[in-house]
Amino acid sequence: MQRRSSQYYHDTNGVPLEDGRTHHVGVAKGEVANRIVLVGSSSRAVTLCSLLDGAPQFSIKSHRGFETYTGTFQGTPVSIITTGMGGPMMDFAVRELRHVVDGDLVMVRLGSCGGLSPEAVPGAVVANTPGSVRIARNFDATFEDESDANYVISQRRAAPDVALAQRLAAELARDCDVVYGLNASADSFYDAQGRVDANFRDCNGNVLERLRARGVASVEMESCYLLHLAAHGTRIRAATCAIVAANRGTGAVVEKDAFEAVEARAGRAVLRTVAALPADVPPPPPAPRETGAELGSALRAMQIRLGMRPEGATEADRKRFEDEDLDRPYGR
Amino acid sequence: MQRRSSQYYHDTNGVPLEDGRTHHVGVAKGEVANRIVLVGSSSRAVTLCSLLDGAPQFSIKSHRGFETYTGTFQGTPVSIITTGMGGPMMDFAVRELRHVVDGDLVMVRLGSCGGLSPEAVPGAVVANTPGSVRIARNFDATFEDESDANYVISQRRAAPDVALAQRLAAELARDCDVVYGLNASADSFYDAQGRVDANFRDCNGNVLERLRARGVASVEMESCYLLHLAAHGTRIRAATCAIVAANRGTGAVVEKDAFEAVEARAGRAVLRTVAALPADVPPPPPAPRETGAELGSALRAMQIRLGMRPEGATEADRKRFEDEDLDRPYGR
Repeated sequence: MQRRSSQYYHDTNGVPLEDGRTHHVGVAKGEVANRIVLVGSSSRAVTLCSLLDGAPQFSIKSHRGFETYTGTFQGTPVSIITTGMGGPMMDFAVRELRHVVDGDLVMVRLGSCGGLSPEAVPGAVVANTPGSVRIARNFDATFEDESDANYVISQRRAAPDVALAQRLAAELARDCDVVYGLNASADSFYDAQGRVDANFRDCNGNVLERLRARGVASVEMESCYLLHLAAHGTRIRAATCAIVAANRGTGAVVEKDAFEAVEARAGRAVLRTVAALPADVPPPPPAPRETGAELGSALRAMQIRLGMRPEGATEADRKRFEDEDLDRPYGR
Repeated sequence: MQRRSSQYYHDTNGVPLEDGRTHHVGVAKGEVANRIVLVGSSSRAVTLCSLLDGAPQFSIKSHRGFETYTGTFQGTPVSIITTGMGGPMMDFAVRELRHVVDGDLVMVRLGSCGGLSPEAVPGAVVANTPGSVRIARNFDATFEDESDANYVISQRRAAPDVALAQRLAAELARDCDVVYGLNASADSFYDAQGRVDANFRDCNGNVLERLRARGVASVEMESCYLLHLAAHGTRIRAATCAIVAANRGTGAVVEKDAFEAVEARAGRAVLRTVAALPADVPPPPPAPRETGAELGSALRAMQIRLGMRPEGATEADRKRFEDEDLDRPYGR
């Protein structure tokens, strides 16, 4: 049977297309550059577009809320794409963008986040050089008490492309107040980020404490999906950073003007990062488990694991290093 | 310190407000009815608005893509609200709407879904009278082979409000081709719904088979979050249904015109449901585990559990009933 364009979409067991466009993100081949900046909100995309060489040569908004802008930054083609909020939306973006772009893909997310570490003050930018874990409500928990079972924190950490993450951190440091830290992506802005709402039985009183014990510096909702999918995808190099909107320990919230100024500065750094990195060569092979600068911390982890308690090690350190034992790099 | 409106938002440890509006859904007290229809897409909201008594008296679109329309249906105030896609977006909607509406809340979702059972043909409407489970990619899996560990299906089933779900099913049956069935909400349109994409290492070849063995009739991405949160929330009655866009077994996809016609018919049924149900009385207490019509299936489950193999019982039945042992109704 010939397929007709009156169908809702085509190929329901693969990436469904509608008139050649992916069904949700709404893009077709030739419309997206292989250097991509992913942002959550439309307003941040507008800010980034203002930093391009001129108006974007291509733009489209999908019926599902994704916006795509393609132009050039200092002569290099780049796309700025809004993902909206939540891991599933990032999943749509990564998979449908991979579907329409040939060759290597470089993807950097510039998000907003809550700061967990004292250094992650409002207006700072957290560069997730260690990557991101995931925290999600456990739909099998009973929510009868403050059990750790209520929220599941992934043991494995989704790691960024090392060279890209380092370049991103260096570019951010030129213009922003940068914190280097592990992120946690939550499946809710509320319960899984430790917010309190008397209208729901969340039993989440220990969530922030557990995340801090894990070494988490920032919490948002999308980065872990990007990093995890990139590590399990074909020729995708990814890294993430996010501007701190509020510090969860102090309750301090950024002022709007300050936030928008950081958006522009961090946006320029992210654009420099994706434009500068060679995107047309294959990414380096995954780094071996213990090399160079990592040897010291690996030795320290081993000492802690053996109960030797090196200088300054705490119980939380022991637990963290046990977790990191599972953090072997993902294959490509 | 006096809080200033130049702040990004207020109260970062609760439901953050910006000039009295919830930060993401963008609504304030007095703008939302306590009878709510939740849809994914903007176009479906427009269709439903066309069924109201006249133009909505209130409408707003948030900077995060949520749209709210409040009007009347046959004289009763109702709101039609878009949630976008994914569980986290539904989480935003349920929590922020609960925050701005006083008293009882009735929430019915009209979504779109993939059909897993043979009866769930394109254009049919699946009424989720048994509720919904959740399926999510396991970020701790290695994705080295087709292991069941790659995707986690919740053991507990989030159940709808019984009276509301029955009313919804009855109203749908007046105008639509209705299938009664369990739903699964996935954290991806792709891997966790068994779609194949050679660009990603998903190892998801057995996902649809596992969902069918669990008795799942439909797959989408949001319903389980609504039902689960309602069951753990204060005075929220919820039920869900979804129009089948494609059957995953046959690959048949609905025609656009047919889909839009069903959207209007199902939309009217959903509006009749929320308008008819008394919303100003407290919901009934959770049903006891085994009453009335359920006694037969409970007896059968017990027989299977005791190895008695009643007529027609299969190995999959045994496993399903074991799972359902965990399905005790959530408290309120």
